[in-house]
Amino acid sequence: MLKSDMRKTTADGVSPVERLHSLVADDMAATDKMIHTRLGSGVALIPDLAKHLIDSGGKRLRPMLTLAAARMGGYSGDKHRNLAAAVEFIHTATLLHDDVVDASTLRRGKVAANLVWGNKATVLVGDFLFSRAFQMMVDTGSLRVLDILSGAAAIIAEGEVMQLKSESNLGTTEEHYLKVIGAKTAELFAAAAESGAVLSGKGADFVTAMRTYGESLGIAFQLVDDALDYSGRQALMGKAVGDDFREAKVTLPVILAHERADAQAKQFWKRVIEGTQSEADLERAITYVESTGAIQETMNRARHYADAAKSALTAVPASDIRTALADIADFCVERAY
Amino acid sequence: MLKSDMRKTTADGVSPVERLHSLVADDMAATDKMIHTRLGSGVALIPDLAKHLIDSGGKRLRPMLTLAAARMGGYSGDKHRNLAAAVEFIHTATLLHDDVVDASTLRRGKVAANLVWGNKATVLVGDFLFSRAFQMMVDTGSLRVLDILSGAAAIIAEGEVMQLKSESNLGTTEEHYLKVIGAKTAELFAAAAESGAVLSGKGADFVTAMRTYGESLGIAFQLVDDALDYSGRQALMGKAVGDDFREAKVTLPVILAHERADAQAKQFWKRVIEGTQSEADLERAITYVESTGAIQETMNRARHYADAAKSALTAVPASDIRTALADIADFCVERAY
Repeated sequence: MLKSDMRKTTADGVSPVERLHSLVADDMAATDKMIHTRLGSGVALIPDLAKHLIDSGGKRLRPMLTLAAARMGGYSGDKHRNLAAAVEFIHTATLLHDDVVDASTLRRGKVAANLVWGNKATVLVGDFLFSRAFQMMVDTGSLRVLDILSGAAAIIAEGEVMQLKSESNLGTTEEHYLKVIGAKTAELFAAAAESGAVLSGKGADFVTAMRTYGESLGIAFQLVDDALDYSGRQALMGKAVGDDFREAKVTLPVILAHERADAQAKQFWKRVIEGTQSEADLERAITYVESTGAIQETMNRARHYADAAKSALTAVPASDIRTALADIADFCVERAY
Repeated sequence: MLKSDMRKTTADGVSPVERLHSLVADDMAATDKMIHTRLGSGVALIPDLAKHLIDSGGKRLRPMLTLAAARMGGYSGDKHRNLAAAVEFIHTATLLHDDVVDASTLRRGKVAANLVWGNKATVLVGDFLFSRAFQMMVDTGSLRVLDILSGAAAIIAEGEVMQLKSESNLGTTEEHYLKVIGAKTAELFAAAAESGAVLSGKGADFVTAMRTYGESLGIAFQLVDDALDYSGRQALMGKAVGDDFREAKVTLPVILAHERADAQAKQFWKRVIEGTQSEADLERAITYVESTGAIQETMNRARHYADAAKSALTAVPASDIRTALADIADFCVERAY
């Protein structure tokens, strides 16, 4: 569900995401291999369709959180790789189902799977990946891990259904919006980190710290993503903007801009969100969102959650991985500037 | 995926399905209660949409198989109810996703969920039920049960994708058709019975016997269902026929009728399955399917699998439940006459 990428680098030329990747490089390579092996099926359409999305350049941030948490907890086995692959499968399944349900046309710059293979196959391949994810979790031998991820999957579905209610609905409150992103995005970040921590066998404080880190990071991420969707700068750089606008999603930038709007702007929002809109309306929407300070305010909230993510890490022993995770929280916000 | 009902009664006025229901009545009542409790969500749309299908009069045959297998294996706990509810949730999730993907308009005589709530919500509620199913399986404490059902769910998705390939494709072989129904229908029957048997803790022979029973029964069921979809008698009784025909599904009755067709009939099949059809073509299709003996031949195969199901039960100690299961295999075929 996150449209922006994480490839932007910091001053030293290496992004903290890349740094974390290096710190768990062997695990990531093994996880990647497992992802491709477990995609296999006697039904060729399944790996064909799934690879379209899985090989399209996503940063595998969620499975990296799982691997990082397991390593930080001192885990010495290899089942965290099964778990990390399962997390990526669940993520991919939700993206595939999101493609269908939102009729979105672009995903990571490629044509969405449902436009190439049709809705039918896209839903079913999502179901296949989801099932395989649970098979891989069984391989970890941990019922607690299965409990965490099956619970997370239910909450993600609830979040997506809640989001439907806020589409084309300017009555959406900030509280409702935060519940939606907490469920549809942050829950998988939280579960990815928590389940890796659980697998390591380290105590409850560590598990809670990692879960809180994942959850806060997930909220920060989604806030930044929702801000970038109305970013004039992003548009100038040739990146896609306006996806949420076209789907009449009521995200925080819209909620805040609408709250701060004068009568004329309120009329505009009513028409474009609850009525009909044309492509030309996007530019005006961006102007309103930026001029009312709604983007800046959304970024302030993101900063707050990024700080909460970093703060959670103080309960965890210092290590290179911990430093990279803290930097990722900062980077998640800074990439927008 | 089974369109025909099982309400038809035998000579003594009580169908064997009802008899089995009576034999596990307490378990079924508890399972039903659990189904409705675990449907619950703070997001009201989820139970609303799911109940539409779950309360629409299905016979809950799959969860009954789970309960029956656990009881026959001498299970004395109560976790088989969680498992049975999970099996029904997986079944319901596949029906919801099937509604979306096949654009079908009727399901158990009600308007399909996707026409009332839209594709988006229907896919997501299916995802929710699927996730809840895994949560309920975690509650059984059995990793083996989770392994069986997650594997089954992957195979069901594969079967549905395989079925896509046979739509509008007269080149579909009988072998391909049998693989499809083995995966999309029989696998859940097999896993429902197998997992109940596993939970009971009884030995491998019992588990294998129950799995084989479920699998054979599932194939017999689907064969009969596919025959009934072209049944002139069924049409006379005012029941829905022609669903498969309208979706250009190449089921065994079509494969056999096409094999046995003269040049003129072959042309007809080519047009209606691979080209365009009108509602008036259904009557002619029924005539061809019946006059070539394709229906009778499909029923003969169903009889074969029903016998295999009964034969599997001979490895299991005699009991009222075993008798009811054997009678259900017969009934599954006889209901068509």
